Amino acid sequence: MESHKQPLILITNDDGITAEGINKLAEFVADMGEVIVAAPDGPRSGFSSAITTDKPLRIRKMPDAGGIKMNAINGTPADCVKLTLHLLAKENRRPDIILSGINHGSNTGNSVVYSGTMGAAIEGALQGIPSVGFSLLSHKPAAGDFEPSRAYIRQIVGKVLNNGLPEWVCLNVNIPYEMEITGMETAESCIGQWTEEYAEYADPSGRKFYMLTGKYRNLDPENKNTDLYHLSQGKISIVPVCAFRDYDRRALKGIND
Amino acid sequence: MESHKQPLILITNDDGITAEGINKLAEFVADMGEVIVAAPDGPRSGFSSAITTDKPLRIRKMPDAGGIKMNAINGTPADCVKLTLHLLAKENRRPDIILSGINHGSNTGNSVVYSGTMGAAIEGALQGIPSVGFSLLSHKPAAGDFEPSRAYIRQIVGKVLNNGLPEWVCLNVNIPYEMEITGMETAESCIGQWTEEYAEYADPSGRKFYMLTGKYRNLDPENKNTDLYHLSQGKISIVPVCAFRDYDRRALKGIND
Repeated sequence: MESHKQPLILITNDDGITAEGINKLAEFVADMGEVIVAAPDGPRSGFSSAITTDKPLRIRKMPDAGGIKMNAINGTPADCVKLTLHLLAKENRRPDIILSGINHGSNTGNSVVYSGTMGAAIEGALQGIPSVGFSLLSHKPAAGDFEPSRAYIRQIVGKVLNNGLPEWVCLNVNIPYEMEITGMETAESCIGQWTEEYAEYADPSGRKFYMLTGKYRNLDPENKNTDLYHLSQGKISIVPVCAFRDYDRRALKGIND
Repeated sequence: MESHKQPLILITNDDGITAEGINKLAEFVADMGEVIVAAPDGPRSGFSSAITTDKPLRIRKMPDAGGIKMNAINGTPADCVKLTLHLLAKENRRPDIILSGINHGSNTGNSVVYSGTMGAAIEGALQGIPSVGFSLLSHKPAAGDFEPSRAYIRQIVGKVLNNGLPEWVCLNVNIPYEMEITGMETAESCIGQWTEEYAEYADPSGRKFYMLTGKYRNLDPENKNTDLYHLSQGKISIVPVCAFRDYDRRALKGIND
């Protein structure tokens, strides 16, 4: 039998290369292929699909972690994907899969719009590479909090490596926290809105400033196909996300007239 | 007859409040309603739907421009929309329409993913407000280059004010440059990929750095419904963009099995 090369797995995130979540993700899939980590050199939460167009990007090689090459980049999650693909292409290599996370905090509902975790996965989809973003529903997870998801994450990564994903589509995976995980379900993004609340402050000179806060208002609470519903039932939610966002132009009223 | 209040028009962009494009846009629609400009205090190109979560946001009132209130914000385009809505809500006010641009440079094909101009329009759609992003296909337009689009922009703004837009949908409008504008067409985003080319440099100490460049490769060149096709024919392209990006989960193969 012919021997097959092992898959090349690129891992990034938006919490930065020292975050617990990305190191756990790399550990979980370490034996499933050759793993390269290329992640922001610090937190980039809320960076969406932002790219750096006007500043030099630099890569800092970090000490290997259990045989895994670690690269810190002074850019956004999408930059990390783009630049690493550029450098791998010079060696005629290309990742078989891109994983992003495990994010510290949920990316449910319309948070996918703002998420840097999903910005990296969407970038992977635009590059034609099957990509998955993972998020745990805790902003301050302890290391052990990631463990219950290990087998599920390995299962999802195995399926995507075997079956691929539809063109321009990546997966947004959210993982329950502090409840028993009872399975996985594909889901819809829960339609809703942030009720925006900026906290208001005055600095010592009396000048006002504002910091973002807010709560997600579920506009579809009866729908049992949403990510929020499945997570409330202890299920891991898997939402397929299309990088292209076109709405049917023929359904536009009053613009063509 | 009852007198109607004039519409409240919020204008932002990603090139910053001093850019020619935003000042032209405000001028073009100044008599169509009460105009408020709230825009980044400097360039934020490529910022997508990024939001600022960990830094204080501040608003600097600038001198009025022809009776229009000008506010510079030290955040992203999406921050400008969110924070301005927050402050208007405290006065029980809410924009009737949000306009973003006129961007200096195109936002065709998958550039909508990275565009800060469209990040602001998508934020408007998520807030339930009809929103339109405008982009001119020149990175260094002279003031006069915006003039040919004046009547078309007024027409689009008038239609959207009258008819609204479908829920969660905003418009991505691109405007030809250096050719006669012969009309407007609703269109699809041209499917394609950036052929990523990072320019590589060495700084004086010999350390490498990288700057983003690249060209868009049209993967659908025969399609006469795309933004790129219509623009090549001298038409203004109007692509409806849905803020939610869900792909049909029932069409996912090999993940549910």
